Amino acid sequence: MTEQSIPSYICPIVSSRETYTYDMDKKNNEYIDQLKDFLTIASVSADSKFTSQVQESAQWVKNALIESGCDTAEIYPTQGHPIVMGTKIIDAKLPTVMVYGHYDVQPPDPLDLWESDPFEPIIKRTPIHPEGALFARGACDDKGQLFIHIKAFEELIFENNLQCNVTFLIEGEEEVGSTHLEEFITNYKEKLKADLILISDTAMISKSQPSITTGLRGLSYIEVTLEGPSIDLHSGVYGGAVPNPINQLSQMIGQLHDENQKITIPGFYDDVLPLDKASKAEIFKEAFDEKEFKQSIGINDIIGEKHYSTIERKSTRPSLDVNGIWGGYILEGTKTVIPSKASAKISMRLVPNQKWEKMTQDLEQYLIKITPDAYRVSIQSFQGGDPYVVSRHHLGYQAAHLAYQKTFGVSPIATRGGGSIPIVSSFEKVLGIKTILMGFGLDSDAIHSPNEHFGLYNFFKGIQTVKHFYHHYTNLSLQDSSL
Amino acid sequence: MTEQSIPSYICPIVSSRETYTYDMDKKNNEYIDQLKDFLTIASVSADSKFTSQVQESAQWVKNALIESGCDTAEIYPTQGHPIVMGTKIIDAKLPTVMVYGHYDVQPPDPLDLWESDPFEPIIKRTPIHPEGALFARGACDDKGQLFIHIKAFEELIFENNLQCNVTFLIEGEEEVGSTHLEEFITNYKEKLKADLILISDTAMISKSQPSITTGLRGLSYIEVTLEGPSIDLHSGVYGGAVPNPINQLSQMIGQLHDENQKITIPGFYDDVLPLDKASKAEIFKEAFDEKEFKQSIGINDIIGEKHYSTIERKSTRPSLDVNGIWGGYILEGTKTVIPSKASAKISMRLVPNQKWEKMTQDLEQYLIKITPDAYRVSIQSFQGGDPYVVSRHHLGYQAAHLAYQKTFGVSPIATRGGGSIPIVSSFEKVLGIKTILMGFGLDSDAIHSPNEHFGLYNFFKGIQTVKHFYHHYTNLSLQDSSL
Repeated sequence: MTEQSIPSYICPIVSSRETYTYDMDKKNNEYIDQLKDFLTIASVSADSKFTSQVQESAQWVKNALIESGCDTAEIYPTQGHPIVMGTKIIDAKLPTVMVYGHYDVQPPDPLDLWESDPFEPIIKRTPIHPEGALFARGACDDKGQLFIHIKAFEELIFENNLQCNVTFLIEGEEEVGSTHLEEFITNYKEKLKADLILISDTAMISKSQPSITTGLRGLSYIEVTLEGPSIDLHSGVYGGAVPNPINQLSQMIGQLHDENQKITIPGFYDDVLPLDKASKAEIFKEAFDEKEFKQSIGINDIIGEKHYSTIERKSTRPSLDVNGIWGGYILEGTKTVIPSKASAKISMRLVPNQKWEKMTQDLEQYLIKITPDAYRVSIQSFQGGDPYVVSRHHLGYQAAHLAYQKTFGVSPIATRGGGSIPIVSSFEKVLGIKTILMGFGLDSDAIHSPNEHFGLYNFFKGIQTVKHFYHHYTNLSLQDSSL
Repeated sequence: MTEQSIPSYICPIVSSRETYTYDMDKKNNEYIDQLKDFLTIASVSADSKFTSQVQESAQWVKNALIESGCDTAEIYPTQGHPIVMGTKIIDAKLPTVMVYGHYDVQPPDPLDLWESDPFEPIIKRTPIHPEGALFARGACDDKGQLFIHIKAFEELIFENNLQCNVTFLIEGEEEVGSTHLEEFITNYKEKLKADLILISDTAMISKSQPSITTGLRGLSYIEVTLEGPSIDLHSGVYGGAVPNPINQLSQMIGQLHDENQKITIPGFYDDVLPLDKASKAEIFKEAFDEKEFKQSIGINDIIGEKHYSTIERKSTRPSLDVNGIWGGYILEGTKTVIPSKASAKISMRLVPNQKWEKMTQDLEQYLIKITPDAYRVSIQSFQGGDPYVVSRHHLGYQAAHLAYQKTFGVSPIATRGGGSIPIVSSFEKVLGIKTILMGFGLDSDAIHSPNEHFGLYNFFKGIQTVKHFYHHYTNLSLQDSSL
């Protein structure tokens, strides 16, 4: 969204039943139409009934990469969803930037809380995005942010201004733990040689205060099922005399936190590194208004680990959340049943230097240990990821810093992200390449929630910022190598 | 099932893919076909999408009552599901027996655990029912047992052997707490004058050891919802810093029992009357094999209130069970969400002299008290019922005792039932009439569970027993009034 060019673009606002005129040039209109097209594909990776849309989405990405100027773009099948790779070689002697993104999206449910169809993108104005925001599942996470990179790349090629080589690595399993990506990058190590990885799949503080995520939490995710009786029983005939798996699973979940909201798994905090002073000072640069925070998500009160601030709790401290629970009769009315089974999905966010495989094992062992003999417990663990940090002295960070400063006119703050992009630590481990996280979304964009959206302002500023990044990174690299 | 008459009746056995020849006379074949017809109607009272079947079921009962010999039978609409009433006056000076039953059934889910369609009755042989059992939702609870009364009555009329007046009161809301029945019996007090109420909606110990239920537990049932954030949140961005309603609801449920499986609601046991020695001795007459009990329901170990036996825990001690729980993402795979809400259905079984309304209030207040400020809690309470006891010296009990002895050749044991028929205490309170509970089901009949069934032996023995009951009760009443 450049301020100079002002033809009109009609954006319907569903909530107020008006139309809103948003001024953009023809090119920008085209960008939005293309992104909308991408967002109509329900590429939900977690649910097998969306498999064909996931594949359609991969094809869409391949086509977009070719059209944007890649020399080659290929779809690589995996045991799960396919990976798309595109390359542009300017000169083998120049540095190579690898752009990672994902074309898969979170499940859209609960559907009844969406104000519009999650796969029929529409533009609406919001208090935070008075210029308009695109509402759809994946608008911000990550189709919108991935599309920023495709468009920035396309413009640089068109302007003949790209001074480095670029590889695109776009997967379709990020929302289910990037199950097959680590194997893929191990197999294609040679093809994936690069100097830096660039990802836009995080948020910045606000539209007026950009930020660069210098750390991510790791992820561990399990599903636990407790079984008591082999069949559902009548709670009158049996109540009080038999194991009830809901009662027990609840009790066990309750036991995972103490009264100070500390996680009780033995040794849980043993590997956590305390935050150094400079990093702590940097993350506290972010203005934090508790009242505004509570209002933004509609909570009465804050809850979290004692002796830590909200900023730390959601970024540099580990956490444990139940993401889903089910058992027994959950429809209308009453049913007096003691169910045979109850299940829960439980995830943990991990911080440097916790290892996801060890932490998952610890959680599993603890759950098994606290399960009474009267119950059978079974646990399924999903793909997790280790936490990640990058130094503010890294060349890529410096280039990103300069790029945001140029586009937004404000110095970005180095923050630590609470979310997880498990593959980032794999990139470091397998390929030995550091990642720079240039996020353009906002926390209020409702990613993973109903009514996910992405501000048009953020989208267009993102394209400008990424273009500046290439410029600064190439310059800094050349300076660095000439020293 | 009379042993004299031996034409053949083909009973398919789905599990073994054989056919099994069951010998019954033509009349008995007719009874089974009629009952099967009744069982095909999916009269699930808890779920409004079955409303028309509930009504169809009421109509079926009305027709059956007329055909069996009632002078009149009427359907009475209520705010909920209709009540069916039928009457037969032999002589106004003779005693009147009121038969209560219900034509509604529990929801059939989980459907995938049924081996046959819950509303397509079939006969299969089981280890406990080698003569065959009818498999269908409601086969035992309560359509099959209700049909025993209709057939016993019909036979007595046909044989010109009915020596008392009979009123049938058949409702369609027993499985949802008999919501409108108390109001109904209050309004129709005059019409419902009777000397005794007869109900078959309980179990007996075994086919060789009949029993009469002399007490029932009361019921309290609530649904609690805890709300944290106003929208679902990303567990990475927010995890550790915001209230998670699943974590908290689980913690609260876990808190409802202590390590001795005592219920922790303040004052919960205050009104519980200790069991007198004679009643305790009577209930322990029941042979109880712990190993067999565990095997029958597939549990590894028994759990329950410390210092009490299994027989007491499931009949004369109060209990609290979560009947259903749900929140967050419960489909395939993973979703890293902190849900806005979590809910649970919680019920309590109450014993003499706990009052369901007070106990429900106590549970509600306790849940509200232990909800932290960061959460909004809302509670819906459903219709409950008070516990009930009848003396073994009661005339109706004596008649039932003689009837079972005659039919089974064994003295029945007076047991205390763990289930609830909330209306039984209302009958006493509103109409001043005691109820005799002549159950013919078995605990292993899987009522409220997948593959509910009712033994053909039990069904036909039931008809004989009820016929004998009328005979003894009339005689004892006449003796009693002539004293």
